[in-house]
Formats: sequence, structure tokens, C-alpha cells
Amino acid sequence: MKRTGFGFEIVAQEGGARVARLSTPHGVVETPAFMPVATFGAVRGVSPDELAGLGAQILLANTYHLHERPGEEVVAGLGGLHGFTGWRGPWLTDSGGFQITSLGDRVTVSEQGVSFSSPLDGKRRDLSPEKAIAVQEALGPDFAVALDECGPARLVGEDEDGARRRASAALERTLRWAERCRRAHRRGDQALFGILQGGIDESLRRRSARETAALGFDAYAHGGLGLGEESALREAMVAAATRELPASAPRYLMGIGRPEDLLAAIAIGTDLFDCVLPTRNGRHGNLFTRRGVLHVRNARYRSDPRPIEEGCDCPACIRHSRAYIRHLLHGGESLGARLASLHNLRFTLRLLEDARRAIAERRFASFCSEVRAGLDEGPR
Amino acid sequence: MKRTGFGFEIVAQEGGARVARLSTPHGVVETPAFMPVATFGAVRGVSPDELAGLGAQILLANTYHLHERPGEEVVAGLGGLHGFTGWRGPWLTDSGGFQITSLGDRVTVSEQGVSFSSPLDGKRRDLSPEKAIAVQEALGPDFAVALDECGPARLVGEDEDGARRRASAALERTLRWAERCRRAHRRGDQALFGILQGGIDESLRRRSARETAALGFDAYAHGGLGLGEESALREAMVAAATRELPASAPRYLMGIGRPEDLLAAIAIGTDLFDCVLPTRNGRHGNLFTRRGVLHVRNARYRSDPRPIEEGCDCPACIRHSRAYIRHLLHGGESLGARLASLHNLRFTLRLLEDARRAIAERRFASFCSEVRAGLDEGPR
Repeated sequence: MKRTGFGFEIVAQEGGARVARLSTPHGVVETPAFMPVATFGAVRGVSPDELAGLGAQILLANTYHLHERPGEEVVAGLGGLHGFTGWRGPWLTDSGGFQITSLGDRVTVSEQGVSFSSPLDGKRRDLSPEKAIAVQEALGPDFAVALDECGPARLVGEDEDGARRRASAALERTLRWAERCRRAHRRGDQALFGILQGGIDESLRRRSARETAALGFDAYAHGGLGLGEESALREAMVAAATRELPASAPRYLMGIGRPEDLLAAIAIGTDLFDCVLPTRNGRHGNLFTRRGVLHVRNARYRSDPRPIEEGCDCPACIRHSRAYIRHLLHGGESLGARLASLHNLRFTLRLLEDARRAIAERRFASFCSEVRAGLDEGPR
Repeated sequence: MKRTGFGFEIVAQEGGARVARLSTPHGVVETPAFMPVATFGAVRGVSPDELAGLGAQILLANTYHLHERPGEEVVAGLGGLHGFTGWRGPWLTDSGGFQITSLGDRVTVSEQGVSFSSPLDGKRRDLSPEKAIAVQEALGPDFAVALDECGPARLVGEDEDGARRRASAALERTLRWAERCRRAHRRGDQALFGILQGGIDESLRRRSARETAALGFDAYAHGGLGLGEESALREAMVAAATRELPASAPRYLMGIGRPEDLLAAIAIGTDLFDCVLPTRNGRHGNLFTRRGVLHVRNARYRSDPRPIEEGCDCPACIRHSRAYIRHLLHGGESLGARLASLHNLRFTLRLLEDARRAIAERRFASFCSEVRAGLDEGPR
């Protein structure tokens, strides 16, 4: 990356997998890295100090949501995302195209941009590529993301050709918007991600990657995945696109968080991830362990004095039993959701720490096999 | 107090107000002290480590609620409240009489005890004085509280004589239950509170205090107050009862938490308090300051970069602005409720720290005047 204050230095490789140092104006991120999701500028129930303690390096917020509330001018007036939220490390903002598209009937997409009626007040709002960039320049994250058009992989009743035509049209519009975003983007202390589309069609994915890379972005994100497609299909899409991307730029797979999916994507050269899974699963009592998901609300844990996961160094495992966390979740006590989220976040961040170490020591392939075998065993 | 591991040493006095060291098997509590409410064994959204950092010395849990869920045998099996929750300092459990009475139609009270249909599963449950003690011996707090009958101060349409007769009957039953609780209580490492009733009638309050003290408890709690009566009336009740209680025993006013009410009760010799107000008000965005309540959800704080209260050392004020906390509360982000609760708890704990210092330095009267004048000014 050529921007001041930024850098991307690959320090180890094993096959497609790589460890790198991603420098930003707000600190270095060791990749592969997982970004906890702070949609509105806060990870659900978790404070900035706790996130640092868990080993989080970079957080993700959402452009659309922060534009709606409190508005980028409020965030900018309080020192941007860093000052507003108290998380002084690096930030990335998603463009919000995906979130807007998920509003369904409320949205119309035209060449100019996206128009939607706000769920907050019902009023009409417009988000063009230029506006998406302007909002992100005001929010001030280290990384902004271009606005994309992201449709469903296949509409109900639609044939394969129809889905492909739609994916192709969305990819072409996303390319035209990418160009407009790149031109609109002025902030020198902010890097810009191009975003790839192409549905679940390998040739479209390749084309999207090739043409987006030709425009020249600081980094690249795989968009429009994690929408229910099979893991193997998704991995094929990511692998196909990755072959067309410059090795010197970070690659980000959006919205993926299952341990086995993270490892598979790392193996084919992905550097960044985000997902709501750790916090959302945590709130529902579904706790990650290296032996698979532990459903702590289950009656069998009613008197279980053990931590969620033996050997885990998270605040929940260090101090509390499965029985206590189960009790809190059953009673709707918010400390329960918080402890469960802390564990799942630490689990995910630790998995990536271990993956980085394994790549650096050239034993990532066997590390992945071990982790996968463990996940299949089921929790004790 | 004559139990092993317990002590109550008065170290300073000014008028009725006093500072004391209340020793327990799990550490010393400097009184006057405020007990954060952990009904189900957790203060809403706040961890044991955070509570220690805020200066909490002792927590309150609820016998009835923990009996319902997860059951005292689960708590006992995991090391009692101290082991189960991870709060290793002193605990007090309320008997649950008040909470059961608040179930309304679901409850019948007889000489034997309280019978009610559980809101959890609709099944019939019974709580006698003996059972209330057995549950608390299993839960293992440092302080247990005798079961009382606590009715409304005045029923709709009821005349004064009727209310007085009812209060008198409840007080007499509470005395008989107190005797049964005292006989049933065996645990040597647990102190027992007698609980006073008498509605809002001074002579009944005096009688309740005199006859409960004659039974000989380790400490005494004013029950049946904080139910909507005027502050002056409540203070008259507490003062009347206090004159009949031994100076050598701790006195606890249940369910009171407004700053001005805490100071008034301290002035007439009260040592312990509990209230859900700091956390409940926090969740609603009503934040305590020495200049009165700051309603942080108000639009005027939308871009306010200041902490909730200048000079406050709580985690919310040290790191975050009014604008950020307002934003989180408006978005229903649980970090907002947590930060607001942390502030209100720290405010209350700090108020009592300052009160203790003022009593020790013989300037409590002027301290109260200053605080009251400040509270009337309104937040800036």
C-alpha cells in the first residue's frame, strides 16, 4: 500500500496461507486477523478495554448504521470513530450496501445509487457511491469500503441463467461504483477497499477480481458471500478471485466466522475477517470450543463447575463455571450474554493467533487437521 | 456481634451518624455502606471484578429468586454464593418475603408461612420461616435475614384504623416468625438480621424494634418502607425504631437509594443500604450527579463531549462522552446500560465513601448541606 502510514508486509507463507503486518495510522494489525463487529460503534456489551484484553486488533463498524444514528457529523465532531467510541486502535467501516439491500421492499437501486426509506423515521434516504465515501471520510476509519450492489445469490423460483444474469449485472454496476468511489475518495490517511461480487459463479468472481484490481485499490474484499451457500462453493469462489488479486494487497472475506470456515479461507490466502457470530452465538448460549459448540443452556450443565473450555484464558473461563453462565442466560441476566460473548470472541481471536503461529512455523496444514478433528469430537 | 468471624466496631460518630467496621468471614465492610443488588447472583450487566473496582464491599442477593432458580442445592454445590458467583467478598441475602408478597393474587399467607404459585412453572411453593433459614444456610451468605410479612402501607379504599390494624397484625406475625427463624438458624459462620415492620405508625415501629431486639439478633433491618411513602414520614419511622435498637448492632434500611434519602438515613444512625435504583435508573439513562439527575437520552447531549460528571473516576466517565453513552442507549446497545450502571453505582458508592470521611472528620452535617444544595442546582 502506498498511502502514508499504511503498509502490508508479508512475513511468512505456507502454501496460500500467509502472515503479514498490516500497518495503519492507528497501529499494526497482524494478519490473518478477525475483526469484532461494532455495528453502531460498540461490540454488543463489550468495552474497548475488554476488547484490547481479548487481543482484538481492529474493529468493524457500519457506515449505513452510523449515518442513520447518530450521524457522521456527530461522530466527526467527537474525533471520528476513534474518539467517539474510545477504541483507539484501527477501524474499518463496511460501506453499508449489504445492510441497505437487506431492507428488502424499502430499497430501490439505480445507477445513481441506493434509495431507501429509513426504518428509523420512514423518510427517504439516498446513498450514492460518492456519499458512501463522504460519510466514511467523516467517520474517519483507517479503512473505508467502496459501495457495492449485493443481491441474493438466487431468487425464489429463479433459474440458473437468470441468477447468473442478475449476478453479472450487479457485478458490472459494482465495478462502475468502484470507479466512482475511487475517484471520490480524498483522505490520504484512509485506505480504500474495492469489493468483489459475482454471486456463486467462478468466472464472474474471477472477472470481478481482475477488473476491480485493474482499478487499483489498497485492498480487496470478497462481498456477497456467507449468504447460505455451501462452504466448498464459497471457498471455490474465494480461491478463484484470489488468483486474480495482487499478492501485495490485503484480502478480506466479509461475514464469515465459523472456525472451520476461517481456517479454510486462511489456507487460500485470506487476511481479514469479520462476523457477528461470536457475539450472537454467545447471547444464545452457543459457545465455541476446540471440541465443537457447547450449548451451555442445556440441563446437563446445571451444576457443572468446569469453565466453558479448559485452558481458555478469557474472563469468563478464568472466573466462572458453566453452571453460573447457564444460570445467568436462563434468567436473562445481561452478564450472561456478556461473559458468553467474551468467551466466543477470545476463542476466535485465539484461533487466529494460533493460525498465525502455525503458518510462521510452517505447520499450518497439520494445525488445520488437528483443529478440524477436535471440532468433530464434540464438547465434554 | 458474638459470632466467630464477625464484629461491629464503631470508629467515629457525629450526632446519630456513625462510621463502623463490620467484620465478616469474607472481609471487612466499612459502614455506612451501600450494597449493590445482585438479585439472581449478578448485578445487572456488571462483573465481580468491576464491582470491586467501583469500591463495592458487599452484595445483596435474593433468597426467593435463587430458591426458584437455580435452586439452593446448585448454589451450595458450587461453593455457595461466593463460589457460584465469583464475588468472594461478603454477601447478604434478603429473605424474599417482600418479593413473594409482591406476587399479589398468587400468594396466601398463613401462620405457617407463605404459599404461592411460582411464576416460573405455576406450581405451588411454600416458604416457612424455617425453610427461609434453611435456604439461606444452603446459599451461604455472610448475612441472612429473617422471613417477614410485609403488606402494603394502605390498601385502596381502606381507612386509617384498618391500615393500622393490618400493620399491627403483620408486625405480630413477623415477630412470631422472627422467633422461629432465630431457633431454626444453626450456621455459626452466618449472622442473622431481625426485620422490623409496623407500617407508617411510629408506635408500631417502636414496638417492632423493641420486641425484635428483645429476641436478640445480630443486626436489624427496617422492612416495609420505600413503598412510596414520603421521605419525612419514612425518616420518622426509622428514627423511632432506631431509638429502641442496641447501638452495638448494625442497622439496615432496605430498598432506599436516592442520594438525599441515603444521607438522611445515615444521619439517624443507619449503617447499611441496598437499592436497584443505580442500575435501573442507569438502564433508563437517568444518571446521578452531585448536581442532580442528568437525563442523558435528552437531545441536548447529542454532541456533548463531556463525561457524565466532571471529576468522576468511574469507567464510563474516564473514557466516554455523554454523546457516546446517549448514542448507545438510543440504539439499545447493551454497553450503554452497562456504562450508565457503572456510573450510577460508583456515584452511590462514592457518596457513601465521602459520607464516611465526613463523619470521621466531624463535618457530616455541613457535608449533607453541601450535597443537598448541589443536587438542587441541576446538571450543567
